[in-house]
Amino acid sequence: MTQPIAPVPLDKAYQLLNHGPTVLVSARHQGVDDVMAAAWACALDFSPPKLTVVLDKMTRTRELVQHSGHFVIQVPTVAQLDLTYQVGQRSLHQQPDKLARGGVELFDLDGRDLPLVAGCAAWLACRLIPEPHNQQAYDLFIGEVVAAWSDTRVFRDGRWRFETADAALRTLHYVAGGRFYAIGDALDADQDVKD
Amino acid sequence: MTQPIAPVPLDKAYQLLNHGPTVLVSARHQGVDDVMAAAWACALDFSPPKLTVVLDKMTRTRELVQHSGHFVIQVPTVAQLDLTYQVGQRSLHQQPDKLARGGVELFDLDGRDLPLVAGCAAWLACRLIPEPHNQQAYDLFIGEVVAAWSDTRVFRDGRWRFETADAALRTLHYVAGGRFYAIGDALDADQDVKD
Repeated sequence: MTQPIAPVPLDKAYQLLNHGPTVLVSARHQGVDDVMAAAWACALDFSPPKLTVVLDKMTRTRELVQHSGHFVIQVPTVAQLDLTYQVGQRSLHQQPDKLARGGVELFDLDGRDLPLVAGCAAWLACRLIPEPHNQQAYDLFIGEVVAAWSDTRVFRDGRWRFETADAALRTLHYVAGGRFYAIGDALDADQDVKD
Repeated sequence: MTQPIAPVPLDKAYQLLNHGPTVLVSARHQGVDDVMAAAWACALDFSPPKLTVVLDKMTRTRELVQHSGHFVIQVPTVAQLDLTYQVGQRSLHQQPDKLARGGVELFDLDGRDLPLVAGCAAWLACRLIPEPHNQQAYDLFIGEVVAAWSDTRVFRDGRWRFETADAALRTLHYVAGGRFYAIGDALDADQDVKD
């Protein structure tokens, strides 16, 4: 690993998703790893941090999440544009070598048995909070974030640093048909809210 | 209204939220209107289109949603940076003139009795799908999108046009502490996924 990685305090973990990036969802069960792309992931709570993610019934990743009770939400970068698109288009059901074909390199951190995707801007290790009705009716999964890390070149001291980081480290925001947007310029609201 | 507004086909409505913008949530009940900002809103399904939004128990908007069974999710623009921040900081509980102070102008469309915020890039009219457990345990609300519209300068023919629209029409992506990012440059993934 050549990335500089540091833990993100759990009370700052929501910020990794707050601006709405497209994410990669990864999971491992009984020696099988899968990674998929998801535009429909969202923060749900601050403390303890929770998040939602929509996992279609056709995906192998969903099966691994349901069986293992754990998953990782990671935030890919502009440099991972094609990787993100490809793991979103292919299924491990049809292509057992999907990850290798997509250029996905996995690693682990802190001795946790979780598949993290190398090169991302941030990673959130999650414990599934079982909600069978949501999962069945809406494909909606809820996770509690139990650990988080970031590439300190682009997120450090509790905030994103897109303004000063390399543009290749910006987050991706998917629309449709292979079209993404990178996150753009910083804007600070007038904090003098007059009462 | 000086904005050029057109309906968005329901099968394209998910695209309005797919790239993760911060939204404004509005609702009306018995003559009371409220508008709040929410970074935690997310598409949930394509057809019929559904979405999730997190509404804190302290907000007046949540009460209006629960009583009326309807709400509007709208996508504010860079030009509405301060408006978005202010309606996110103030509560109608404490400030009955919150909307006027925040510079919010409301209008309606197609004869629907719903408060739409003028100047936004897009609007999604939603019917609440009651899910009492989600609402109570997670502050998580699910809506079915029953109509959608866009400002055609920035979303038309079924897709966002940030590349060619005025930069003031770009969407906002909130992080924390008054810091937002505008959506940035378009990136097209290599669609030749080799099998």
